[in-house]
Amino acid sequence: MRGVLEAEKITHPAHAPGMPTVTVLGDGQLARMMQTAAIELGQSIRLLAGAEDSSAAQVCSDVVLGDYKDYQDLVKVCAGADAVTFDHEHVPNEHLLALIDEGLNVQPRPEALVYAQDKLVMRNRLKELGAPVPRFSSIESVEDAAQFWESTGGRVCLKARRGGYDGKGVWFPDSAGELSDLVSTLLDSGTPLMAEEKVALARELSVLVARTPSGETRVWPITQSVQRDGICAEAIAPAPNLDEALAARCRELGVKVAEELGVTGVLAVELFAFDAGGADGSVVEDIAINELAMRPHNTGHWTQEGAVTSQFEQHLRAVLDMPLGSTEPLAPVTVMANVLGAPEDPAMPMQQRVVEVAKRYPEAKIHLYGKTHRPGRKIGHVNLCGTDVEATRRDAAAAAHFLVHASWD
Amino acid sequence: MRGVLEAEKITHPAHAPGMPTVTVLGDGQLARMMQTAAIELGQSIRLLAGAEDSSAAQVCSDVVLGDYKDYQDLVKVCAGADAVTFDHEHVPNEHLLALIDEGLNVQPRPEALVYAQDKLVMRNRLKELGAPVPRFSSIESVEDAAQFWESTGGRVCLKARRGGYDGKGVWFPDSAGELSDLVSTLLDSGTPLMAEEKVALARELSVLVARTPSGETRVWPITQSVQRDGICAEAIAPAPNLDEALAARCRELGVKVAEELGVTGVLAVELFAFDAGGADGSVVEDIAINELAMRPHNTGHWTQEGAVTSQFEQHLRAVLDMPLGSTEPLAPVTVMANVLGAPEDPAMPMQQRVVEVAKRYPEAKIHLYGKTHRPGRKIGHVNLCGTDVEATRRDAAAAAHFLVHASWD
Repeated sequence: MRGVLEAEKITHPAHAPGMPTVTVLGDGQLARMMQTAAIELGQSIRLLAGAEDSSAAQVCSDVVLGDYKDYQDLVKVCAGADAVTFDHEHVPNEHLLALIDEGLNVQPRPEALVYAQDKLVMRNRLKELGAPVPRFSSIESVEDAAQFWESTGGRVCLKARRGGYDGKGVWFPDSAGELSDLVSTLLDSGTPLMAEEKVALARELSVLVARTPSGETRVWPITQSVQRDGICAEAIAPAPNLDEALAARCRELGVKVAEELGVTGVLAVELFAFDAGGADGSVVEDIAINELAMRPHNTGHWTQEGAVTSQFEQHLRAVLDMPLGSTEPLAPVTVMANVLGAPEDPAMPMQQRVVEVAKRYPEAKIHLYGKTHRPGRKIGHVNLCGTDVEATRRDAAAAAHFLVHASWD
Repeated sequence: MRGVLEAEKITHPAHAPGMPTVTVLGDGQLARMMQTAAIELGQSIRLLAGAEDSSAAQVCSDVVLGDYKDYQDLVKVCAGADAVTFDHEHVPNEHLLALIDEGLNVQPRPEALVYAQDKLVMRNRLKELGAPVPRFSSIESVEDAAQFWESTGGRVCLKARRGGYDGKGVWFPDSAGELSDLVSTLLDSGTPLMAEEKVALARELSVLVARTPSGETRVWPITQSVQRDGICAEAIAPAPNLDEALAARCRELGVKVAEELGVTGVLAVELFAFDAGGADGSVVEDIAINELAMRPHNTGHWTQEGAVTSQFEQHLRAVLDMPLGSTEPLAPVTVMANVLGAPEDPAMPMQQRVVEVAKRYPEAKIHLYGKTHRPGRKIGHVNLCGTDVEATRRDAAAAAHFLVHASWD
C-alpha cells in the first residue's frame, strides 16, 4: 500500500489547481491563522477538526470532522496533501510514522516532535547537545523526588513529562512532604514525571526559528514574554534591553536546536533568563531552555503585524520546503497582548467591546479566534506597533483588557 | 413582510456567536481578501458565489451558490446578515432597494452606487459639486458625437455609460469618421454612451477613502497607478514627487466625493494628473476625476502590507459602522505589481514560480487569487515595501513578471 495515499489527489473546490494543499491536524487558533496566510499565498488548507464550529473550522471550506487520535480519520484527511502539519503536538507518533510509511510528507517529523512531547526526553537531548538547561532529573519514585529536593535545597519544579501547557502539568511544592505526596499521587495515577531546579527567574524570552526540510533557517528578533498564572499574557519584540551578545547567543541556540533536533516549520524555544552575577557583583543576564514548541507559538503572534513575514506564513512555507521569507521587524517595538477570558463574561456584547477599543486605539490590530467565553481562555490577541516600549505595552494591555472586561482598568 | 429578512439569524457554523456576519455579493479576489481580514477580526463572511471553486468561494465556508441578478438568490444569502456589501457594482439597484425595504443593511446604498454604475450620471453629479472633471457630453446620436469631436478638436474618449472596466467599454477614435461609425454601431446595439475630452495625461493617481454610515472618514496616502492596455499594472504609494498642496487637495476631494455621494465602505477616486502649465512656463500638476469605484480597489492592494489598516479590513469596519483604523503608511514606499496572465502560460508550475520569486525576494509579499491562467487576467499581485522608489518598483515588477512568464525579463 506504500505510496497510495500520496498518489491520491485532493479534488475539493477549496484547492486551486497547481497550488499546494496543506493538511493541518488541529482546529484551534493556530490553524485559523495559518488559513489567513494560506489564502493570501494562494495555497489551501484541508483541516482535521473536532467540531464544525471550532476556531479554524469556521474559516476553512475543506474540513474533515474527526479525531486526531484515530488513524482512519488521519488517513482520510491527509491523503493527497502536499504536506501534513499541526496546530498542536498531540497526534500519536505511531500514526505519524504509519502515514510517513504510506508516502505522506509529515512536517515536522515524529523524530523531532518527540522532543516537544516528552519533557524528559527533550532535556536529555538538549543536555547532550551542550545546550543550557536547568538541572533536572527523572522522577520515578518518591525516593527520586526526595533526593532531588535535597540536592537542590528545595528549589524544585515538578513537571508531568507529557501533555502540560499553559501552566497545567507544572507544580511548585513548598515542602519535601508536599513534593512527596504529589509524586506519590501522580505516579499512582500513571503520570510520568520529571523535576527541574527552579530558576531565579528574571524574565522569560523566546526564540522563534523557522527551518525547512532543505535546511534553510530564519530567526525573528528575540521576544520577551510575560506569563501570568502560567499563561502567556504578553509578548514584546524585540526583547527590551537585551545585550546584543546574549541576543546573538539566543539566536544561535535556536538555530542549533532546530538543526540538531531536525525540526521543520516554526520552532519556539522558550527561555528562562536569570542573573548569573558578574565577578564584580554586576548583573549578567544568562539563559536556560524552558520549553520547546514545534509549531507557531503564542510568543510569535506579534509577527503578524510586526515582521515582514508572519510565523503563520513562514510555517506554511517551511513545511512545503519553500524559501523562507524575511523576518525583519517592521517597527521599533511590537507588543502582543493576549485576550484571556475574564472570570465573568460582561454583559456588553463582544462586538461592542471591539468598537470601543477600535475607537480609542485606531492603530491596534485586534485578532479574535471565534471562540466563546471561558475564564482564562485564549480568545484573541491585540498587536500594537510603536516606538516607546512602555507606552505600547500600556495601550496593548488596555485594549486586551477591555475586550474581556468591558472596562478601562 | 418588512423586517422579516433582518430578523432571521444566520446559524451556519462559520459564524461565531456574538460577532457580525457580512454578506458579500460577488466571488472574486476582492471578496477573497475581505475574508482574510474578516478571519482576523473574528467576523465572518457569507458569500454569494457563481461557482464553488471561484476565488472567494475557495476560502469561505458559508457559500451560497447563486446569481447576483436573481432576487430570490439575493434574499437567500442576505437574510440575517449584519451588513450586505459587494465585490463589484453590478447587482441591480432595484433588487438592492427591495432588500433595504425588507430591513437589510446594504452598504454602500444604491443611492450612492448609481454614481459608480453610470459614468454620465456620475459626471453630471461631480460637475454639480464643482469637482474637477474633463469636459464631457451625453452621446445620444451621431450628431452629438460630431459636435463633441468638433468642440474638442478631435480629442475624444468615447465611453459606454455602464459596465466598462479594465479598458473595456472605452474607445479612442482617430478620426471623426471612426467616431461616427463607432457611435452608430454602439447605439444600435443598445449601449448608452458618453464622451469625454481626452486629457494630456501625465500620470494617474488614486485617492482611497473609507467612510462609515455615521460619517467617519479616513484617507490613505495618495497612490500613483500605472496602467498598461487599460489595466492597472502597478501602484506606488505614496505617489512620488507629489506636491503636498496637491496631495491635500486630492484627499479633500476624495472625502468630499464620499460625503456628497453618500458613499460607505471604501471609495476609490481615480484621477488624471496633467500639466496645467504655470504662468512662467513651469510644470504645474493638476487633476481631474476619471472613475469612481465603491469597494476595495486594485490601486489599494498595497495597503495590505503598506498601511496600518488594509482596505479590506477597513471596508468591513466601514460597512459595519465600526470606528475606522489608522491609514498611516508603514514604509517610505510600497509598490504593488499586478500578476497578469501572460499571453501563454509557461510550462513551469505556478508553485515553482512562487518558489523562485521567494528565493530571490524574501521581502516580497506574494498574493495569489486561486485563479487559473487566462491572458491578461488578474491572478495575483506582489506587494513590496522599500525605501527607494525605483529599486522597489523594479523588484516588484520583476517578481510579478516571473510569476506569469517564468523568466527574469
